[in-house]
Amino acid sequence: METPAKKMTAVVMEKYGGPEVLRLSTEVEVPTPDANQVLVQMKAIGINSVDSRVREGGYMQKLFKPGHALGIDGSGIVEAVGEGVAKYKPGDRVYIVPGKTGTYAQYVLANENSVYPLHEKLSFNEGAVLPIPYFTVYRALVQRAKLEKGETLLIQGASGQVGLACIQIARWLGASYIVGTAGRLEGRNLALKSGADAVIDYRADDFQDQLKEAFKDKKIDVIVEMNSDINMKLDMEIIGYGGRIVVVGKRGETKCDPGNLLGKEASVMGSGLRLSTESQRMTMAKGLYEAAEEGWIKPHINKEYPLEEAEKAHREMDDRKGGVGKSIFVL
Amino acid sequence: METPAKKMTAVVMEKYGGPEVLRLSTEVEVPTPDANQVLVQMKAIGINSVDSRVREGGYMQKLFKPGHALGIDGSGIVEAVGEGVAKYKPGDRVYIVPGKTGTYAQYVLANENSVYPLHEKLSFNEGAVLPIPYFTVYRALVQRAKLEKGETLLIQGASGQVGLACIQIARWLGASYIVGTAGRLEGRNLALKSGADAVIDYRADDFQDQLKEAFKDKKIDVIVEMNSDINMKLDMEIIGYGGRIVVVGKRGETKCDPGNLLGKEASVMGSGLRLSTESQRMTMAKGLYEAAEEGWIKPHINKEYPLEEAEKAHREMDDRKGGVGKSIFVL
Repeated sequence: METPAKKMTAVVMEKYGGPEVLRLSTEVEVPTPDANQVLVQMKAIGINSVDSRVREGGYMQKLFKPGHALGIDGSGIVEAVGEGVAKYKPGDRVYIVPGKTGTYAQYVLANENSVYPLHEKLSFNEGAVLPIPYFTVYRALVQRAKLEKGETLLIQGASGQVGLACIQIARWLGASYIVGTAGRLEGRNLALKSGADAVIDYRADDFQDQLKEAFKDKKIDVIVEMNSDINMKLDMEIIGYGGRIVVVGKRGETKCDPGNLLGKEASVMGSGLRLSTESQRMTMAKGLYEAAEEGWIKPHINKEYPLEEAEKAHREMDDRKGGVGKSIFVL
Repeated sequence: METPAKKMTAVVMEKYGGPEVLRLSTEVEVPTPDANQVLVQMKAIGINSVDSRVREGGYMQKLFKPGHALGIDGSGIVEAVGEGVAKYKPGDRVYIVPGKTGTYAQYVLANENSVYPLHEKLSFNEGAVLPIPYFTVYRALVQRAKLEKGETLLIQGASGQVGLACIQIARWLGASYIVGTAGRLEGRNLALKSGADAVIDYRADDFQDQLKEAFKDKKIDVIVEMNSDINMKLDMEIIGYGGRIVVVGKRGETKCDPGNLLGKEASVMGSGLRLSTESQRMTMAKGLYEAAEEGWIKPHINKEYPLEEAEKAHREMDDRKGGVGKSIFVL
């Protein structure tokens, strides 16, 4: 129960709004772990697009109030544990999602069951990239689409943090053929390096022809869809018999013909982390640990910032179109 | 192996086209059952909307060629069995789907595994209504949506043959609350009599308000959708957390926002019979037999025709908007 009685540095959201509402404070009190809680000294912190939505207000307002630190995931070293914590002891390498307190801080409090062991093959920086994108992908591919060994996969939006994680996890699961789509050359190369069999530029005039050519004599079993507001019509047309289109993003009205699902008995399924249970997240972390052990997890870090540059980091994230990997704060 | 060496009456499709291509012939040869086949003397025959699509050509052309009888289901008495048939003997009451030969005929050949025992509580006429609509519903509710006891159900299009079967099967499965939508007064009354808790006129100006009022404090777990080309946008908005929208009909482009599925982790799933395996259809028939035993199956027969009126029957089916129950031929 012993905790450092001191102040710490954290990025506080002064009110809901643009990147300018983020302010560095050196006067935030280090929290003390209650029963079943763990205090973690942060080494690296995820900068997630969901953080922008929280910052703008209207999303997870109960968890993130003005005057407190932003951020939901990150990695570090256990500093102290509360009563009843059995799984961790000071010094353990861990990553967390979500924190009980905002993770844009030197120290973060988390429930024991929101803390996961960080595999020794992964650095702290890599650990900070795991929680949201890799959990999102595990949820989408394993718990929702139930991708099976030997099945084929199309990733619509393969160069972002979720897309890249998707390629790696699908390879681990034994997917037989993985095609990604991406806009920028840098992203396409990154997706290829991450293990995609082919990557198609979705801005090309003959994009749809290229896609059909890529799958020629193969049926499409699973589509992970980052841009359902643009691609749903095409997805429903090209998905194979018994196929699953997993919607991971994003909102927006579009035209499509759900009748295409009928004869093929195909499905469109939303996937997210908010409805995942503690036990499901434990399963995800266990799976990811195994995948890391087997060498499949290679998180790509887009850019590293110090906490001092939180406003800049958010501004660059908000402005970015189709990012390549996830950015982090490094302490 | 003994079979009647005689001619029979059947409704032959002279070529692909409108109802006028159906012609009554008294010169069709009664088929002989090969190994593992059953010959059934038909008592009642289903008139399915799929028959119209076959008749127009471009659907199941391999199975239904001009010059042969139309029709895929019906009920009757086993007349003869081929070698190796263990489950049936002459005199057994059965229903079949699909036939090896078209079912618009006095005698129909079927593989043993496409023949199912007709429960004594059901008449031949009722038996002819079972195969397509009740199998379709079993597939949609049990094998696709996996409706669980205590869940709620919205049936978009509750007064047709599939809609009415849906109400009965959902009650058998223990659905806690069933709301249907229907256009005509006759259909709404029929849906209520079949066990719906509420039925809403989808032509009403305040249809959406009535729907929300009907589900007030209840979340919608499953939607069975007969008109996905019209309702998909609304369905995605109102479906509950973890909910399933089962698309049973029909084709047509529409607008919707698949992003609505994201946070709710809801799904849209096509459901049909073409991909069902023999073993799955056995399971359906077994379930329906149990439901019949428990008194939940009450097929509603729209209209009865003699085989001589096949053209008229098809014309009336093609012209109908939102039917009430399924029509049959009675021999």
